[in-house]
Formats: sequence, C-alpha cells, structure tokens
Amino acid sequence: MSAGCVIGVDLGGTKLLAGVVEPDLEVRHRVFRLAREGRGSEELLDQLVEAVQEVQVAAGRELLAVGFGIPSLVDVQTGVAATTVHLPLRDVAFRDVMAERLGVPVAVDNDANAAIAAEHRFGAAKGTQTAALLTLGTGIGGGIVVDGSVVHGANGGAGEWGHMVIESDGPLCTCGNRGCMEMLVSGSALGRAARRAAEELPDSGFGRARSAGREITGALATELAHDGDPVARDVVASMGRYLGIGLTNVVNVLNPEVIVVGGGVIAAGDMLLEPARRVVAERALLPSRDRVRIVPTRYGDASGMVGAGLLAMDLAGVS
Amino acid sequence: MSAGCVIGVDLGGTKLLAGVVEPDLEVRHRVFRLAREGRGSEELLDQLVEAVQEVQVAAGRELLAVGFGIPSLVDVQTGVAATTVHLPLRDVAFRDVMAERLGVPVAVDNDANAAIAAEHRFGAAKGTQTAALLTLGTGIGGGIVVDGSVVHGANGGAGEWGHMVIESDGPLCTCGNRGCMEMLVSGSALGRAARRAAEELPDSGFGRARSAGREITGALATELAHDGDPVARDVVASMGRYLGIGLTNVVNVLNPEVIVVGGGVIAAGDMLLEPARRVVAERALLPSRDRVRIVPTRYGDASGMVGAGLLAMDLAGVS
Repeated sequence: MSAGCVIGVDLGGTKLLAGVVEPDLEVRHRVFRLAREGRGSEELLDQLVEAVQEVQVAAGRELLAVGFGIPSLVDVQTGVAATTVHLPLRDVAFRDVMAERLGVPVAVDNDANAAIAAEHRFGAAKGTQTAALLTLGTGIGGGIVVDGSVVHGANGGAGEWGHMVIESDGPLCTCGNRGCMEMLVSGSALGRAARRAAEELPDSGFGRARSAGREITGALATELAHDGDPVARDVVASMGRYLGIGLTNVVNVLNPEVIVVGGGVIAAGDMLLEPARRVVAERALLPSRDRVRIVPTRYGDASGMVGAGLLAMDLAGVS
Repeated sequence: MSAGCVIGVDLGGTKLLAGVVEPDLEVRHRVFRLAREGRGSEELLDQLVEAVQEVQVAAGRELLAVGFGIPSLVDVQTGVAATTVHLPLRDVAFRDVMAERLGVPVAVDNDANAAIAAEHRFGAAKGTQTAALLTLGTGIGGGIVVDGSVVHGANGGAGEWGHMVIESDGPLCTCGNRGCMEMLVSGSALGRAARRAAEELPDSGFGRARSAGREITGALATELAHDGDPVARDVVASMGRYLGIGLTNVVNVLNPEVIVVGGGVIAAGDMLLEPARRVVAERALLPSRDRVRIVPTRYGDASGMVGAGLLAMDLAGVS
C-alpha cells in the first residue's frame, strides 16, 4: 500500500466527489463536498485543493497525479476551461493553476468525457467501438466514443447532446438557445414538472408534500415514483419519452452500439429508461435502433470521478 | 492515357452520375441518367451496369475497380444495403452483386459518406480533423469525419443528420419519425413551401408560375430567389433558418471545424447559408460556434461521384 497513487475529482454543478482511483478502478478514501453558495472562482479552486489534500492525507501514499472532470468545455490541449454554464470557471487555465497549487501533474477534461472514458474502459460501454453517454443531472453532460476513443471535437466541445434542439421554439435554455433537450430532460426539468403537478393536483403525492412544506424536487419525484405514486410515475415516464426523442437523435446521428445513461436522474431506473427505449424503437432509423442498447452507467454517480482518475493514470503512466 | 482507371458512381433518389475519377479527383467521361419511374431492384442494377459500361467504353482504358455511393445505410463490412427510403435496394448484397456483374472489384458506401470523403481529401473539409457534411437534395444525406476518418457507426448508419428531430411533434417523416430536419430542410421541403406560397399568394412569382402551368418545385424557388423575387427569397431564407437550427445541433454535438453543405438546394448559395449562419451564431454553444465554418461543397453535385471514385481507388491501391 505504499506505492504511488492518483486521485480523481468529479466537480459537479452543486457538489464534488474525490477519491484515490486504483488501476482496477476501485475507489478508496472518498470525499464528498457540497458546493458553497455564491463562491467565486478562487474559492472554488481552494475547495478543490482542500478536497485533494484530504484524500491524500487519508491515503498516506505518494501522489503521482490528479485528474479532474469539470462541467465545462475544456480545451484538452491547453487545459483551459472555456465556457461553463453552472460554475465560475470561464477562461480559467485550470490545468496549470491546479498543477502549480498541488505540486503534481494535473489532467483535466469535461466531466462527461471523463465519465464515458471510465464506462468505456471497464463499465457499461466496455468492448464497444461506438458509444454515447448522457448524464442527467442539474443539466445534461454528454460524451461520444468513436473507434474506441473519446471524441473531443475542435475545441473540446463535442458530445453536448443536452444542447440539441428538439423543440425549435421550445423554452429558453440556460445556454441562450431554445428547446434544448436539457430543458426537457434533466433533474431540473423533473423538478419543474413535479412543481407543476403539485400546483395542479393538490391531492397528489406532490400536492401533499407541498402542503407539508417539503421542497418539490426531481429527487422527490423519483422517490414518490419508486413508492408507486401514479402522478410521480407519470411525470417520470413523460420525461422518459422526451429522453427517447433525444436518444432517437443520438441513434440517428451516431449509430452507437450502446448509449449509457447516468447522473442523478437515472435513480428512476427503468421507470425512465423503458419509455425512452419504446420511443427509440418507434422513431429511430433501422437497423440502428435494433442494434443499440440503452443502459444505465456501471459506476453510477462515480463515473466522472473514476474517469478523472483514469486521466491521471494515463498522465502518470500508471496502468 | 492507357493506364488503368476507376469509375465512381453516385446514385441519387432520382438520378445517377458516373465518370472516370482520376487520382487528382478530376472527372472524365461523365454520364448522367434520370431514374426510370417505378423501376424495381433488377432494373435499377441494370441501369447502373449500363452506365458503368458506357463510361468504360468512352474511356477506353482498363477498369481497375468501381465505387458506388448509394442513398442507403450500407454495412461497409459486407457491402449490403440495409434500409433505404427512396430506392428498391433494401437488403440487396450490393457490393457482391455488382462485382459479379461488372467483373471488377467494387466498393460501396452511403452516398453522403462518399461525398464527405471527397470533400475531406481535396475539397471544402481538407486539412480538418473534425467535419460534418449535409447534402440537401430530395432528402438530407449526412456524413461525419472524426480524427480525419469517416465515421460509420455500428451498422453504417452514422451521420443521418437529416433524421434528427428538431420539432418533437412535427410533421410525419418518410422514415416514420416526426419533425425530422429533413421534413423542414430539403429540396422536397422547399417545394412544399413554394406550393403553399403559390396558393396563398396568387400575385407572387410562385402564383404567376402556377397560373402559367409551371410545376412549383424547390428548383423554381431557387431560380426565382436568384431573380430577386421577394416571396421566393423569404421562402429560401425561412428554410435557411431551419437549416441553422439543425446546424446548431451539429455544432453542439460534434464541435466540427467545418460543416460542408451540398446537394441541389445549395444552388441558393448564401441566400440559404447566411440565415443559417446567423442562427448558429445566436443559438449554438461557445466556443464551438465561433470555431465552425459553414461552407458549400467544393465538388458541388459531383461530391458523391468523386468520393465513390476515391473508394474505388483505395480498393484498387491507386493513389
């Protein structure tokens, strides 16, 4: 246990996860932090450094490299965070700043690209040449594998499935576009649908939760749906059908062997995925729709952290 | 001129183009055929064999290989045409049947994949690592280049940009889906918009053409728009804006360096592309939208034939 180790960090819109990632992708010494409200870019970087140091101390091993998955378009050549919707990281020279502060080599990529790397190496997309990943959280993260490698595009911006327009005059998205898949399929969208149901149907589970002063969120919708609440099941299934329209586009554009779906919303499991699979079976092109498997992530919420660890291993030459 | 040669054939929904393709992608001895109405699969293959033979006789050179671009999902491993919307080629073992009938090695791929191969080798996508192509004809053909190679996906079905849903409850598409980009942006869609205008505005150029007994087509819309007819310009610009929504999705999904637009509809040139570019500049993600160039094909209507010739050259080891 005295060999060197790498740490993977998955930074989300509202939380961060860090841990030592072993070559077999086991994770040890996990650290979880909620985002501090209203933090600026310096404070966010401080929080990341502290989390890494806490893991390092717990591990008591030499630190070879650190990998980060961040919810931003990342220029993988320069390690600079380009745009980011949910965090104050725009134009931050993330890789160089963190390498200087941590004193070890640092790798950085988009969080969903890190997640698909992990799922492709040992998870739900293992053994495939062509794969897509969507993580349904606050927004949608996305990744693409072609010929067994993660696709970055010209600026690290490839795989933003969540910002495909599926309603040309649909609701305004945080990105400035309209009718993006993310506005109709995500944890935030599920929360909005649940709040509408709470208002329109005061006798429903949502309505009662609201009267009891509970916050009506996407997570509550998933919880009530698991408890068998019919309105909550409808809300989840309805989002599943929109997910199916988005995945129809993924199938027609990429013809993947597998689409891996992760993020917090996937806690709804087949209540979400079955309606999506049915829409794909009806609407996507043949033979692509018969070929594709639509499955949850193997590593669940840890995909991004595990994938960030992989980036660090590649950088440090560990395997 | 006595060295061996290859022939490239581009089979469209309503016409075919064939010619000798030289290593510098010059085309000689072109043959053009309109589709015979109501033909079956045997008749279609006969027509292809005749066209190749006519080119071969005109060239008077040894034939090394023939390449075909066909408007079908093609399994490039087996050379079998999978589904095809516009032609009777479903499940035809195209490569083996044509090789036997022509007595030379045959290569086959989707027509748009052939076109993007040509545009990538020497045309509008030359020198790029990540590129997309859309050919706007009867329908939309599409192709993808990643890391400098054409992406086929699991079954040869990748790149079907035309069958991305951009209106989740939009008009029924020939593929069975709803709201596909192809229903809103294509030669057929332009013809439909022109016929609507002819009916609603009898005093417009379209209305007068209709009264004069002319057929109202997408090509007429382009012609009138070039003549400065304001209604025709509106119809073309309106389609350009829908094109922009589709291209926004292409930018967000792939982050390409270039999107090459071809097919008959591109005859409208910047009257179509400028509104599309404006929508992409407003709606697509940064920095991807600033990076992408949206340009017409270099080889115009010949992209597919030239690309089919490239497939044949690769097969015959000519370069």
